[in-house]
Amino acid sequence: MATKQILITKYKGATHWEESDLLAVEEPLEIRLEFGPVTKRKSQNISITMRTPGADEDLATGFLFTEGIIRQASDIFSAKVWGENSVTISLQPDFDFDIKKLERHFYTSSSCGVCGKASMDAVKIAITCPLPKSTDNWEIHPEVIYTLPDTLRQAQSTFDATGGLHACAIFDREGNLLALREDVGRHNALDKLIGHYLQQGLIPLDQHILLLSGRASFELLQKAAMAGIRFVCAVGAPSSLAVETAESFGITLIGFLRDGRFNVYSGKEMIGPFPAN
Amino acid sequence: MATKQILITKYKGATHWEESDLLAVEEPLEIRLEFGPVTKRKSQNISITMRTPGADEDLATGFLFTEGIIRQASDIFSAKVWGENSVTISLQPDFDFDIKKLERHFYTSSSCGVCGKASMDAVKIAITCPLPKSTDNWEIHPEVIYTLPDTLRQAQSTFDATGGLHACAIFDREGNLLALREDVGRHNALDKLIGHYLQQGLIPLDQHILLLSGRASFELLQKAAMAGIRFVCAVGAPSSLAVETAESFGITLIGFLRDGRFNVYSGKEMIGPFPAN
Repeated sequence: MATKQILITKYKGATHWEESDLLAVEEPLEIRLEFGPVTKRKSQNISITMRTPGADEDLATGFLFTEGIIRQASDIFSAKVWGENSVTISLQPDFDFDIKKLERHFYTSSSCGVCGKASMDAVKIAITCPLPKSTDNWEIHPEVIYTLPDTLRQAQSTFDATGGLHACAIFDREGNLLALREDVGRHNALDKLIGHYLQQGLIPLDQHILLLSGRASFELLQKAAMAGIRFVCAVGAPSSLAVETAESFGITLIGFLRDGRFNVYSGKEMIGPFPAN
Repeated sequence: MATKQILITKYKGATHWEESDLLAVEEPLEIRLEFGPVTKRKSQNISITMRTPGADEDLATGFLFTEGIIRQASDIFSAKVWGENSVTISLQPDFDFDIKKLERHFYTSSSCGVCGKASMDAVKIAITCPLPKSTDNWEIHPEVIYTLPDTLRQAQSTFDATGGLHACAIFDREGNLLALREDVGRHNALDKLIGHYLQQGLIPLDQHILLLSGRASFELLQKAAMAGIRFVCAVGAPSSLAVETAESFGITLIGFLRDGRFNVYSGKEMIGPFPAN
């Protein structure tokens, strides 16, 4: 369940009353990896993430892909959800996976950033191995860009009910919404979205627009780059490192997209001209 | 520097122009720990967090405290900032610290949640060792609660400039703002705030109000509990696990505090009555 009903007390001015309300559910998901040759199979927990239940297989698959652990859906032999809060991803027996490398690179972090990279170098590694840049150029017209937040909001049923979920969505170049994912953690929402496309065999998403319901951080741009996304719009502000990452990978980055306005932080050549009057 | 100036292209309706703009700076901070007896001193990176530069010593100290690695400021022998993006915390030689335990518990996560806990049990551990509950009871009147967001906004200079920073602040019971910290990562903002109070010897903060500029997640409530905070207000929505955590520790949790309204999700007995007319 993505939402949970509880009884709360509401205050407004000098009055208060009890009312039923919906919360966005936040629960831990344990991601376990099975790997190694058939005769020496190993298993290890590699992550606990606080997420909104649902699409856990997409989340785990997307996480492994955007963190650079797998390169394609076929690196996975099977995925299995256990109970409510655990998923096991079994890698192909012949997939060359070095758990020691993972252990060296993954530490902790209390930030939403590049959680777990054990050195500054790892931050750079994380963003130097995405998909090759696409070379064909295309443009999105401002009129299409303005429409994206309204389209997202109309599709976002849970957000309206709880106000507690981040959303991200993939649109085509005409501004049609193709897929939407929501989560209490914005990185999880993006991993669910990318994991879905990876399993469909539709990565890279180099002909699409990614819309983020909140702010654009380094990690979201890094994940977008891994999925070959070249056009990212955020309703909120970008950080300095998000802009630098977008510039490095030739990603067009738009922020503060709302109320018929937006700011272009990088890649303005992909914004089309207004039609002649 | 907490902000960085760049040239962007702004679009509004059918017009666009270039303009100088401010970004919230996001950069990695490496937290290194020195520990062990004088004759067998060891050193290890334990975290990389994407943060807004500034108050890095407070951030590292607060992180170690809210993650349960240290229990008090005096567990730290010294703290030293290296260059722009690294801080070393040197623990007391006689401080009993087991790096293996840390390695077992810290894995990775792409969420804003309990990044790095290696098993479900660790999630529970994280919230079962905060400060003892305070027993003296007090109330905050709704009129005081309504004033908090405006007071925060008036004090938040950087937020106004970039729109990209999360804020958290400590108020006294009369609604006076005592301390404010901002960061691209909301967990970092709270660690900076708690680290500041820890170094001042003012933990537990059991006579104070914590205000969060955004949503209330499990991890923020867990950190608040570690600091003995009993009254938490958020401008945004709480998650289901944030409410459960607040209930477990007897924390009053208020959400959607804005525009002369708020919702009480737990601990309503700490909300005072309206004055008699």
